[in-house]
Amino acid sequence: MPVMPPVVPQPGTERPKPYSGYFQRGTSVADPELTQIGPGTPMGEYMRRFWQPVCLSGQLTGVPLAIRVLSEDLVAYLDGAGTVGVLHRHCSHRGTSLEYGIVSERGLRCCYHGWLFDADGSILETPGESPSSPLKETFRHGSYPAHEYEGLIFVYMGPPEERPPFVTYDTAEVAGNALVPFSLAHPCNWLQIHENHMDPVHSVFLHVQIGGDQLPRAWGELPVLSFRETDDGAGMVYISNRRKDDETIWVRNQQAHLPNFVQIAGIFDLGRQERYFTRAGMEWWTVPNDDTHSTVFGWRHFNDEVDPRHEGCRDLIGVESCDHIAGRTHTNTYETQQREPGDWEVLVSQRPIAIHGLEHLGTTDAGVVMLRRLLRQAVRKENPSAWPDRRFTKTTRLSTSVQDTTLSVPMRPGVDDREVLGRYGTAVTDAVLDSAGQPTSERRARVEARVLLERQNSTRADRV
Amino acid sequence: MPVMPPVVPQPGTERPKPYSGYFQRGTSVADPELTQIGPGTPMGEYMRRFWQPVCLSGQLTGVPLAIRVLSEDLVAYLDGAGTVGVLHRHCSHRGTSLEYGIVSERGLRCCYHGWLFDADGSILETPGESPSSPLKETFRHGSYPAHEYEGLIFVYMGPPEERPPFVTYDTAEVAGNALVPFSLAHPCNWLQIHENHMDPVHSVFLHVQIGGDQLPRAWGELPVLSFRETDDGAGMVYISNRRKDDETIWVRNQQAHLPNFVQIAGIFDLGRQERYFTRAGMEWWTVPNDDTHSTVFGWRHFNDEVDPRHEGCRDLIGVESCDHIAGRTHTNTYETQQREPGDWEVLVSQRPIAIHGLEHLGTTDAGVVMLRRLLRQAVRKENPSAWPDRRFTKTTRLSTSVQDTTLSVPMRPGVDDREVLGRYGTAVTDAVLDSAGQPTSERRARVEARVLLERQNSTRADRV
Amino acid sequence: MPVMPPVVPQPGTERPKPYSGYFQRGTSVADPELTQIGPGTPMGEYMRRFWQPVCLSGQLTGVPLAIRVLSEDLVAYLDGAGTVGVLHRHCSHRGTSLEYGIVSERGLRCCYHGWLFDADGSILETPGESPSSPLKETFRHGSYPAHEYEGLIFVYMGPPEERPPFVTYDTAEVAGNALVPFSLAHPCNWLQIHENHMDPVHSVFLHVQIGGDQLPRAWGELPVLSFRETDDGAGMVYISNRRKDDETIWVRNQQAHLPNFVQIAGIFDLGRQERYFTRAGMEWWTVPNDDTHSTVFGWRHFNDEVDPRHEGCRDLIGVESCDHIAGRTHTNTYETQQREPGDWEVLVSQRPIAIHGLEHLGTTDAGVVMLRRLLRQAVRKENPSAWPDRRFTKTTRLSTSVQDTTLSVPMRPGVDDREVLGRYGTAVTDAVLDSAGQPTSERRARVEARVLLERQNSTRADRV
Repeated sequence: MPVMPPVVPQPGTERPKPYSGYFQRGTSVADPELTQIGPGTPMGEYMRRFWQPVCLSGQLTGVPLAIRVLSEDLVAYLDGAGTVGVLHRHCSHRGTSLEYGIVSERGLRCCYHGWLFDADGSILETPGESPSSPLKETFRHGSYPAHEYEGLIFVYMGPPEERPPFVTYDTAEVAGNALVPFSLAHPCNWLQIHENHMDPVHSVFLHVQIGGDQLPRAWGELPVLSFRETDDGAGMVYISNRRKDDETIWVRNQQAHLPNFVQIAGIFDLGRQERYFTRAGMEWWTVPNDDTHSTVFGWRHFNDEVDPRHEGCRDLIGVESCDHIAGRTHTNTYETQQREPGDWEVLVSQRPIAIHGLEHLGTTDAGVVMLRRLLRQAVRKENPSAWPDRRFTKTTRLSTSVQDTTLSVPMRPGVDDREVLGRYGTAVTDAVLDSAGQPTSERRARVEARVLLERQNSTRADRV
Repeated sequence: MPVMPPVVPQPGTERPKPYSGYFQRGTSVADPELTQIGPGTPMGEYMRRFWQPVCLSGQLTGVPLAIRVLSEDLVAYLDGAGTVGVLHRHCSHRGTSLEYGIVSERGLRCCYHGWLFDADGSILETPGESPSSPLKETFRHGSYPAHEYEGLIFVYMGPPEERPPFVTYDTAEVAGNALVPFSLAHPCNWLQIHENHMDPVHSVFLHVQIGGDQLPRAWGELPVLSFRETDDGAGMVYISNRRKDDETIWVRNQQAHLPNFVQIAGIFDLGRQERYFTRAGMEWWTVPNDDTHSTVFGWRHFNDEVDPRHEGCRDLIGVESCDHIAGRTHTNTYETQQREPGDWEVLVSQRPIAIHGLEHLGTTDAGVVMLRRLLRQAVRKENPSAWPDRRFTKTTRLSTSVQDTTLSVPMRPGVDDREVLGRYGTAVTDAVLDSAGQPTSERRARVEARVLLERQNSTRADRV
Repeated sequence: MPVMPPVVPQPGTERPKPYSGYFQRGTSVADPELTQIGPGTPMGEYMRRFWQPVCLSGQLTGVPLAIRVLSEDLVAYLDGAGTVGVLHRHCSHRGTSLEYGIVSERGLRCCYHGWLFDADGSILETPGESPSSPLKETFRHGSYPAHEYEGLIFVYMGPPEERPPFVTYDTAEVAGNALVPFSLAHPCNWLQIHENHMDPVHSVFLHVQIGGDQLPRAWGELPVLSFRETDDGAGMVYISNRRKDDETIWVRNQQAHLPNFVQIAGIFDLGRQERYFTRAGMEWWTVPNDDTHSTVFGWRHFNDEVDPRHEGCRDLIGVESCDHIAGRTHTNTYETQQREPGDWEVLVSQRPIAIHGLEHLGTTDAGVVMLRRLLRQAVRKENPSAWPDRRFTKTTRLSTSVQDTTLSVPMRPGVDDREVLGRYGTAVTDAVLDSAGQPTSERRARVEARVLLERQNSTRADRV
């Protein structure tokens, strides 16, 4: 039976006429270079070169935890000696799932024949075999190194000889800061979740104009917006400049680190008080379970700087729950999803894997375009700085540029306010990026000095 | 690993012996020419040349309705100006589902970045972009024209230049008639549902002899049965002739219009009173959602002519519900399905797509055979009359032939009653089909005149 | 998009280093020769040469029972005349499922058009057709012969000319014995369920050391273990020799008959009293529904010999339930599964089809290895004795070797007790296998005589 190919417009043909859905039924493949993450895929192998969070420490109780990471079935456990193990899920003896295994004083024991595996894959015991059997020495169970940090379990799934040091970020340095871990599962590809962070325009519409009170009102104005690669070659920031009121403007930098980590600045209203270089409100990794399922793992930050009015609620933060995005998981009814859509709905409904070939991108998608380009350069190895061996050799605490700065800059009649916003945004971001690697207090002073200079220039310009 | 082919009987071989299931394990493919309906398939393209119902008007409330039609994912909505829109479901910007969109005063707005689409696919707003951006003019969102009629939303999904006028049927002309819309979802291919209407023998068994009281008792006798193509070349009728009692006979015509519309005559007992040419009790389209899911959309007719004792119940009619087939949906328990099977069970259980190659058809399947032949001729373009450009150019109210006629014809000893039934059935149907295009009153008179003539002939024959 | 092949260790390469899961991501195919059972597959055709249980008699009530056996969709029923029919599920007329059919005085009637099928596939009635229609004589509905025995319905699905007699086993001969039927569904391949019976080591760990009180404590010691093919060439036994206490030892034989039948010896503690050749506690067939679903059908035996303290509970035995493995079905919560794993969890979680290529087998898997080898020889027709035409020609009651023997053999200082266990085990098993075909009382006497001889030899050896 011959099947006619779908009718698709040819390149160079005219814009379809009204009611021309018939000519737009063509489909396209997703972007496999960026979206496929199984063993042996370019993006999958790139992601495996980084430590990835795979569960919360609190999920490791008396029984093993079945997890799926980068299309691999694994099991995580905390043994009696306090060692976290992450093993291939199926017993290397006869294939029984180790999620039914017995957590032991040392290692994890399969419940079927009692074989005992250590966190490094060593076979500690094969009790049905003769004590003198050399079987234990002939193979090793598949395992990955794990590292616990601030309530999250991180795993390195790449080639052993390429294992990078476990790195942390300077955003944790804020006085009195506490990191509270959470996770959120999404039945869709990782990339459409991750690139949402380099798309600040969606907040204007989804979270304020349409969503009502999902974010403070100042988010409801279209920002003066730009994007910049970071100097370390390993990511990008967005620069979002908004007027809060007639007296106050607000410059925000949010940072995406290749491949799948993002730092989000303050998520609560920071008020009208002038503040420089306040840091992250939350951070997260978008970790693929497989090509069409992903779990976000990260922390909410609790400190007086990013939450001056103590609006955060720790009790709402954990597995499948976060105070900032309460209710925004698969647990909503369809009616609520339709009447109050949030990030979960807009991301998951882009299809299991968003199809880039069907998009129509605008200037406001510049951040998404930049992020995809950086990822593509990375997996093609056109950018050595994007690989951990270039990034993580000299320091374990990375200097980052996520920040909010609130400034007193009154509106002035006859002056193009968006031009003013852009100028201050550039000034602040220049100072932030140029001071990367310096101590926080130094960077804050650099921002303040740069703002002062900008004010002087503005006053001079006024006089002219 | 070589796998032996299943053992199947060879053509010309003998009938299998008892207990020979082993030799009958061969499978066959479904009939793709008639059953596949996706974009570009022969039947799919043929169906797209007709307006098809896709939902009830009452389903268009304040939120969009996600629908799937002919293997395409769509969304339907009613905007503030009263326009019904049917759009491709995924936003042409970044792919988010428009089922989470905001129904606006004009058009449907995506909740992610606020782009606003009109019913004809025009992009009305791209609010994140500069007001002067030409982006809106460079493309159009996939859309189809919609038309509301008697509580159903119809959509045309074919090539725009081939769009036929929206046609209606003369069955709505009965005095005081009211059409009450309904829909019923079935997890199976469309054809096995549709062809059930040209198989009146199933009513004898499924609905009466086995099903008990699903239909009035007169249905429980095997009718004298024949089938005839209609003169317009666009469908067929069945001619079912039954004796109601010793004094009364009953001639029924039910009509199938290519490709997927059917008109069903009275569904309640019309009594023993002599009545000519009473019209439809219900009408419906069997609309494919995809190859293995279909939804029936149609109306129940309410008027004194087809429901003289007011047995119908409007309150039972709507989405997934119909008074005539109350409970005959997926909502029954398996026990009820087994003990009281109805159309839903016999149709859905023919497999997701019935496999014609495994059937053993009898003479009573003549209507099914004729319908499949007409459909095959149509998709092969061997019958131009089956295509809407030949059928819908001159009129928007089509003359149809669905009807019941009840006649006083006493049984007479020594006379072959089935011969009598066949003779009257032919007489009535001749008059009905020959008068197509005439006003209803004229046609009724033609039937009456023809019956009178038949009575005279019979009396004369008796004398001879 | 080129995808790198998964990294797998090459033959001859070294054992992976610690934390080398990255190098162990290779996958392998399941063993299709032994695991695939659809029509035309080697194992599927082999299994079809044997009568297989497909449901419990008690499941045949007033409505048909839809069953799936060896990847074929069937329906079973008990008609008014007491005949059990097993038919291809879809009506040979138009494909409607006969699970909605009407069980008749003779045969099963399709509810759609009333066609009536007899148990042998004859078409008894096609009521919509003319009474003189030859249609009924032109074909036959697919059917298989059925046989009811001790509460189970057995079906023969192989070539009709190869149908073997229905055979029974001598294990039913115990005085006062009652067989109580049960079934248990498993969502996995048949082989991993079946081979569990030739793996007595799993009982030590899963059922005692890990599972706690799933079996009497004596099971918790590693037995002196060996395996032997039976002389009829059609299966194997395991020989498990354990010390019960300082005074008593216990020799157990469990028997697997090719392809999928197993006889399990006593499942309750038989006490310290000396007993010879006590027979089966349960028997079962692991019947594939399809490649990834299987149902176990069998009986629990109730008699004073295997259950001296009357620990069994008939009320717990039936569809999806068995007293010996109460709760060990899919009905447990995930938490219970994790905390109290049993056979169901370890077998089902070996993947839908266990992948032999990923296993690391030890000496304790010798029984599994032997069983797979026997099955492979059978399907390759290298062992004619494994086929029913060689096995079932002369008798309908097969002599089998499943048994327990409890012996008073005190531990003696300075003597290697495992050597003693092995010696008595060999003696008992020799007597059991050598006496196959003899009456039970004769065989018991042979065992006793052989044990006496062994005791004499032991005493003599002591003196030396």
